[in-house]
Amino acid sequence: MVSNKMWGGRFEGGPAKIMEEITPSIDFDKRLAEQDLAGSRAHTRMLAAQGIIAKEDADAILRGLDAIGQEIAEGKFIFKRALEDIHLNIEARLAEIAGPAAGRLHTARSRNDQVVTDFRMWIREACDRAEQGLRALQGALLAQAERHTTTVMPGFTHMQSAQPITFAHHCLAYVEMFTRDAGRFADGRKRLNECPLGAAALAGTSFPIDRDVTAKALGFARPMRNSLDAVSARDFALEYLAAAAIAATHLSRLAGELVQWCSPGFGFVRLSDAFTTGSSIMPQKRNPDAAELIRGKTGRVLGDFVALATGVKGLVLAYGSDLQEDKERVFDAADTLELSLAAMAAMIADLKANPDAMRAAATAGYPTATDLADWLVRALKKPFREAHHIAGSIVKRAEELKVDLDKLPLAEMQKIEPAITQDVIAILSLDASVASRMSYGGTAPDRVREQIVFWREKLK
Amino acid sequence: MVSNKMWGGRFEGGPAKIMEEITPSIDFDKRLAEQDLAGSRAHTRMLAAQGIIAKEDADAILRGLDAIGQEIAEGKFIFKRALEDIHLNIEARLAEIAGPAAGRLHTARSRNDQVVTDFRMWIREACDRAEQGLRALQGALLAQAERHTTTVMPGFTHMQSAQPITFAHHCLAYVEMFTRDAGRFADGRKRLNECPLGAAALAGTSFPIDRDVTAKALGFARPMRNSLDAVSARDFALEYLAAAAIAATHLSRLAGELVQWCSPGFGFVRLSDAFTTGSSIMPQKRNPDAAELIRGKTGRVLGDFVALATGVKGLVLAYGSDLQEDKERVFDAADTLELSLAAMAAMIADLKANPDAMRAAATAGYPTATDLADWLVRALKKPFREAHHIAGSIVKRAEELKVDLDKLPLAEMQKIEPAITQDVIAILSLDASVASRMSYGGTAPDRVREQIVFWREKLK
Amino acid sequence: MVSNKMWGGRFEGGPAKIMEEITPSIDFDKRLAEQDLAGSRAHTRMLAAQGIIAKEDADAILRGLDAIGQEIAEGKFIFKRALEDIHLNIEARLAEIAGPAAGRLHTARSRNDQVVTDFRMWIREACDRAEQGLRALQGALLAQAERHTTTVMPGFTHMQSAQPITFAHHCLAYVEMFTRDAGRFADGRKRLNECPLGAAALAGTSFPIDRDVTAKALGFARPMRNSLDAVSARDFALEYLAAAAIAATHLSRLAGELVQWCSPGFGFVRLSDAFTTGSSIMPQKRNPDAAELIRGKTGRVLGDFVALATGVKGLVLAYGSDLQEDKERVFDAADTLELSLAAMAAMIADLKANPDAMRAAATAGYPTATDLADWLVRALKKPFREAHHIAGSIVKRAEELKVDLDKLPLAEMQKIEPAITQDVIAILSLDASVASRMSYGGTAPDRVREQIVFWREKLK
Amino acid sequence: MVSNKMWGGRFEGGPAKIMEEITPSIDFDKRLAEQDLAGSRAHTRMLAAQGIIAKEDADAILRGLDAIGQEIAEGKFIFKRALEDIHLNIEARLAEIAGPAAGRLHTARSRNDQVVTDFRMWIREACDRAEQGLRALQGALLAQAERHTTTVMPGFTHMQSAQPITFAHHCLAYVEMFTRDAGRFADGRKRLNECPLGAAALAGTSFPIDRDVTAKALGFARPMRNSLDAVSARDFALEYLAAAAIAATHLSRLAGELVQWCSPGFGFVRLSDAFTTGSSIMPQKRNPDAAELIRGKTGRVLGDFVALATGVKGLVLAYGSDLQEDKERVFDAADTLELSLAAMAAMIADLKANPDAMRAAATAGYPTATDLADWLVRALKKPFREAHHIAGSIVKRAEELKVDLDKLPLAEMQKIEPAITQDVIAILSLDASVASRMSYGGTAPDRVREQIVFWREKLK
Repeated sequence: MVSNKMWGGRFEGGPAKIMEEITPSIDFDKRLAEQDLAGSRAHTRMLAAQGIIAKEDADAILRGLDAIGQEIAEGKFIFKRALEDIHLNIEARLAEIAGPAAGRLHTARSRNDQVVTDFRMWIREACDRAEQGLRALQGALLAQAERHTTTVMPGFTHMQSAQPITFAHHCLAYVEMFTRDAGRFADGRKRLNECPLGAAALAGTSFPIDRDVTAKALGFARPMRNSLDAVSARDFALEYLAAAAIAATHLSRLAGELVQWCSPGFGFVRLSDAFTTGSSIMPQKRNPDAAELIRGKTGRVLGDFVALATGVKGLVLAYGSDLQEDKERVFDAADTLELSLAAMAAMIADLKANPDAMRAAATAGYPTATDLADWLVRALKKPFREAHHIAGSIVKRAEELKVDLDKLPLAEMQKIEPAITQDVIAILSLDASVASRMSYGGTAPDRVREQIVFWREKLK
Repeated sequence: MVSNKMWGGRFEGGPAKIMEEITPSIDFDKRLAEQDLAGSRAHTRMLAAQGIIAKEDADAILRGLDAIGQEIAEGKFIFKRALEDIHLNIEARLAEIAGPAAGRLHTARSRNDQVVTDFRMWIREACDRAEQGLRALQGALLAQAERHTTTVMPGFTHMQSAQPITFAHHCLAYVEMFTRDAGRFADGRKRLNECPLGAAALAGTSFPIDRDVTAKALGFARPMRNSLDAVSARDFALEYLAAAAIAATHLSRLAGELVQWCSPGFGFVRLSDAFTTGSSIMPQKRNPDAAELIRGKTGRVLGDFVALATGVKGLVLAYGSDLQEDKERVFDAADTLELSLAAMAAMIADLKANPDAMRAAATAGYPTATDLADWLVRALKKPFREAHHIAGSIVKRAEELKVDLDKLPLAEMQKIEPAITQDVIAILSLDASVASRMSYGGTAPDRVREQIVFWREKLK
Repeated sequence: MVSNKMWGGRFEGGPAKIMEEITPSIDFDKRLAEQDLAGSRAHTRMLAAQGIIAKEDADAILRGLDAIGQEIAEGKFIFKRALEDIHLNIEARLAEIAGPAAGRLHTARSRNDQVVTDFRMWIREACDRAEQGLRALQGALLAQAERHTTTVMPGFTHMQSAQPITFAHHCLAYVEMFTRDAGRFADGRKRLNECPLGAAALAGTSFPIDRDVTAKALGFARPMRNSLDAVSARDFALEYLAAAAIAATHLSRLAGELVQWCSPGFGFVRLSDAFTTGSSIMPQKRNPDAAELIRGKTGRVLGDFVALATGVKGLVLAYGSDLQEDKERVFDAADTLELSLAAMAAMIADLKANPDAMRAAATAGYPTATDLADWLVRALKKPFREAHHIAGSIVKRAEELKVDLDKLPLAEMQKIEPAITQDVIAILSLDASVASRMSYGGTAPDRVREQIVFWREKLK
Repeated sequence: MVSNKMWGGRFEGGPAKIMEEITPSIDFDKRLAEQDLAGSRAHTRMLAAQGIIAKEDADAILRGLDAIGQEIAEGKFIFKRALEDIHLNIEARLAEIAGPAAGRLHTARSRNDQVVTDFRMWIREACDRAEQGLRALQGALLAQAERHTTTVMPGFTHMQSAQPITFAHHCLAYVEMFTRDAGRFADGRKRLNECPLGAAALAGTSFPIDRDVTAKALGFARPMRNSLDAVSARDFALEYLAAAAIAATHLSRLAGELVQWCSPGFGFVRLSDAFTTGSSIMPQKRNPDAAELIRGKTGRVLGDFVALATGVKGLVLAYGSDLQEDKERVFDAADTLELSLAAMAAMIADLKANPDAMRAAATAGYPTATDLADWLVRALKKPFREAHHIAGSIVKRAEELKVDLDKLPLAEMQKIEPAITQDVIAILSLDASVASRMSYGGTAPDRVREQIVFWREKLK
């Protein structure tokens, strides 16, 4: 057992069979291979520059690391469970390639600082990928918005038609949400970008290392200030998971809208065959599968956060193997998020809006009642609360007569409020309502076009 | 694309590339292969018996299913992502083996009832495995208890020494918890053991099927009473996950004790080399790795529950692809739980208690102060609250003099309560204290031995 | 400070101000008052019967407890934060009423076993209340089912119309789910119904108590077998929370349906004014507020489970104050669940189905395509997979011609499959489809009526 | 029913009794009173400035709002459940005070944008309070660090003694964690600080409002760019909850250390009487109650995040009453976090470290084995892996002879590695080990003092 050899000369027995099942992390942490090689290269170069190891040893190690990188890239590297994790797998292979020099690589380093350095680099890249994925999705939403600045649809509250809005306005609401999501990843990335390498097991090291050099070589802003914190903390992973979980709630909301919009009761959009699936028994089905899958995966990312938070919460300082769970949770969340973002961007790009169905739906439910109330305030100087009450009574009358508001005879309105004049009719149509919402951030096409310009510049 | 063919003749385009990433479930649902074959066999036999398909077609299908079972067992079956899931993989292969007859298998069945039938069978077996794993762990705990009925250790509350107990008593506390865990799996198994097969897509079928026959053939207690419920409900999976999450909290508590007991501040137990790991930089370490890993995995099972509950919560009836997440969560939780149970049972069997260290720890902190208070009640007829107050003052005096309670001179006690007599000293030793806790369920060795007898019988 | 007096004579300083904020639990655990009084009564009677305290002392205590019960019932009892919890509040008041005898109540008992006895009794009643609430809701659903055995609505999968079903069938699907929910509460109640009283602090007691007597007096099946387990375990609370969380997912699904059904795109049901709310700005709104509130509260119950599981998971034996969180989580979940059940039952009773809207929606999307495929199997002996493909092509043709399936000219069908005959038309209507689903558990009115009879008997 | 009047003239029936239970939010949202008044003042002034309402009406409203603020401050305001929420409570009272003018306040505003404006302001302040609480805690930790730069304690990994560190170093590790926590609140505060007021129900308004003015008046950086997003999004609340949950994991870790350090097996610190509690039955106990309570509350904050994320995840745009749950979750998390921070800061300030117990514990377990391995690398030029193996064998020999490493005879070491010289002994003491960890971030007192200087400046 190589791993026993790694642990030193004191162990007489070998790990029990069940330990071989529960201990190894190589099945998942091999995804850190690239980061691990980069970390070892930076560490080696620094050790040589500081005179801690000889230049020829450093060269042998660096050549060996390159060879291993090549083997992994070509799929030739053999990952062994007996060697537990990616770090020992690489180290053991390095010993075969580079000979005794390999034994000098682990000077002034521990697996504790090594693994967390790798992991921070991995999450740093995951943050970048998340930002790119969000940006691509925003691009798809913006493109739809550009097509539909005058496409009227119902704005819902409580799934009841509330006021007419435009489809462009609706798309841009999600652009806003995804921008904040991207901001969370950017903030988290900045906060985690400090280098733990050189913290060694937990106390630092007596070798005259230069942590600024390795931090810089690996793209970190600076070395971490406290070696104990460096190996113990996992809040950077939790922050990534929290940002992913929040982004997933936005994806879920949008996915839920797609599912609804594809439903026959709405029919607001149509996804192409490429983005719908059939049924094994019902030949007529066009199921918005991918949207449902995305929505279904939200809980998964939330579960990843819960899982790691629960684990971290129970640990005293410094390292405990409870933390080995961190990587699977983050890998799972990152895979889920990135796939969901890509699938959502593709669906948004693919969908065809159905303006007729949207408009038809927008007429139901007296959505311009607020416009009527506002007119009573503006034109008749009613206090809003009284105007609101009058408008409610007029809606009730329209409901009894089964007509839309702009089709209700003026005389009927005047029975309720004699001062109402013919002018009111003009403001009760869907288009008039939408056009009138000219306040900053409102749904009026002119306002929305301003935002489109803003976003086109910003997402360039 | 075979899957397009499965969906019928209406789709012109093929699924987009991203759909090939997000849609297939074969990577994980191949674990349902055995259940799927069993379900198809039962369905085929019933169809033939009811005259819905011809006997020769049924025979061809059954031979084909057997051949596929053989291929899977021998590792020769090729699982294809293009065929999405285990059901279509098997069906497509069946078509190759059995020819046109294969096309008759899906009569009066939908993927909706098929998949949930498979899944219920899988969880049923997972419940049985969980019960077995719990029983094995209880056996290991019982064996330790048998060895240590008179091994005195501190009973902690708030991690402060409270009253002396025996190690046997402590082990049996966990036996109790794991019994209730097993009860939850048994109850869940019973509740889920109703057969959804025959619910078809969601409405039932017009074919004259006999659901009692298939239910019985597959070991279910009865067919489910409502076809819509049959394909929509996932509370059986949630109940399994909840039971697993609760069991995991017990495993975590026990694992936490092992970690503490192995810590130098305690030294209560020693794990063999097989169950400890070393450090890459500190040669002297004996880390109770497996215990920490188990503790760290608790949150994972909880996260699985959160993930699925969140998904199910948002779904209207009947089926939505959100539910595709159910299997990965359950598989992950089952793997985690079963591995944790096995590792814990092995560690408990392996550990060697250190009675000297336990006893030494039990003397600290005046753990027989309650015995003193109880004596004041019994011998001097003091109300408990007054006795409690006197005992507190005596402990304070012992603390000032830096002596254990049973070493405090009688005169010192009498300064605080003159009526105290020499008799009190005898009840202030650890062994006397433990022996005196004779109430049912108490830590007195005689009481604990009764429980050992009870459990030995029960776990036979 | 009375609480200092309770702790005994050893504390010189008083708790800091912040401790007065964080420590007391009286604000929430006063809800255990009734259980605490019952527990104390049973304990007192047993102590007297066993000769541990004098009969006259017992009488004084019992009279005092009755007086306190009276004061609480009349709202005259003054709960004091300085006395921390309900147990010390009652004990201090008892000392005022009953004098020195009060000090004998706490003989052979600790707050540890006292509080958990109270809590088990409280949850036991909460299980009963949950079962009653579920039963009332089932009654409301059954009453709707009885009214609508022939009301056809679309059966959805993926929010796409899949096959026609009846509203009665849909209602009964939820009756099934809520039955399983009730089963979980019943199982949990049975499992928790063991009495911890007499476990004392954690080790049992040296007083000759009779735990069978107190267990029986308090309605428990038996005393718990292990005193350490008795004071440490909280899986009973977790099991209650898990059952509540699972039930909440069912409530959320049903609430989500109500929200959808009230939406103008559906219009399947109408809630009365009593169950809808208006808007402060849009006078026409009828928001299904209560349904949304119920749906929104699901996560809260799930959060309660997560909160307590996370806390319990990190605790070694026996008691730690981390467990003080248990009560607030359970009270919150119980209040939420009970209110949600009551509100849902009232809404279900209140709602008026709109059969016309349901039927209109059911005609969209070719929901009888499966019937066509099944007919091809039955009448033309096609293998199902081939039949399925033919049916898909016919749907496609109908879609092109913009007609429903039963309006598609026979000649068009025969172009795709020449063997199709006029007979097929009869099975393509909604009513024919529904009536044909005669398999056990299917949506055919006759089948559903059988289930109604079953449930009427069962819920009697 | 006043609330019916608010909804307008269309409702004939009153809400059912159960609705009165489930709908009102006044019991918790009265905490938004101050924010609501501020929002209304800013809105009123803007309306007047824009000429939308008359100056005298604005004055009447502003006087009324001031009067209400006064009433609330003096505890004279009567909150009514019949008026549902804080907004309607204030509005109804305003109508009583200001007469008809009050009816003009709600012009160009909806409850949707009003409530979310209030809520953002509240969370903004909660972020500030969290930062202050974290800073106070950091101050307490820094003060302890200043006292203990040469206090040696064991550095643990896996709860095994790994390498000696200083107590100052340990305290500063938490200072680092809490700084990142503060950073998360600061980032979240910045991201949420955009003003939704003026979004009205969801579409904006036709009144010529000036959103820049209200945003600025209320301390927001700018108005939100999309009215639909403004009323729908709750990621700001989720981000606060996530930051709180992550901070709570750090508090839990520190609390867990306090519980352990107070445990007799450690005895590293002593809390004063003010921060410990006694037991009702064991007079000698000094329970670190507050630390356990803090640890136990971690899950609660996590549960709050889960609860709201689950709710938000399921909602399509724009507002649904599911979101009413947001406030209770945030209030609960904020209360819990703030109380935990205050209690922890007080405990840290209160604790007295026990350097003797720490040093005694640090000698156990051969914690300078790494120093030995490092010496072999430096002095004998051994590759680290070989040095590590030799050190392991020497530890094993010391263990057999039951001596500490620096007491092992040189001859015994030389039997394993002949080249070892007398020089090695000097580096094997605890103080030498600690002093040698001079790498940046290491535990050497000089290094730690540099960090203390840094933090003293930073936390000034």
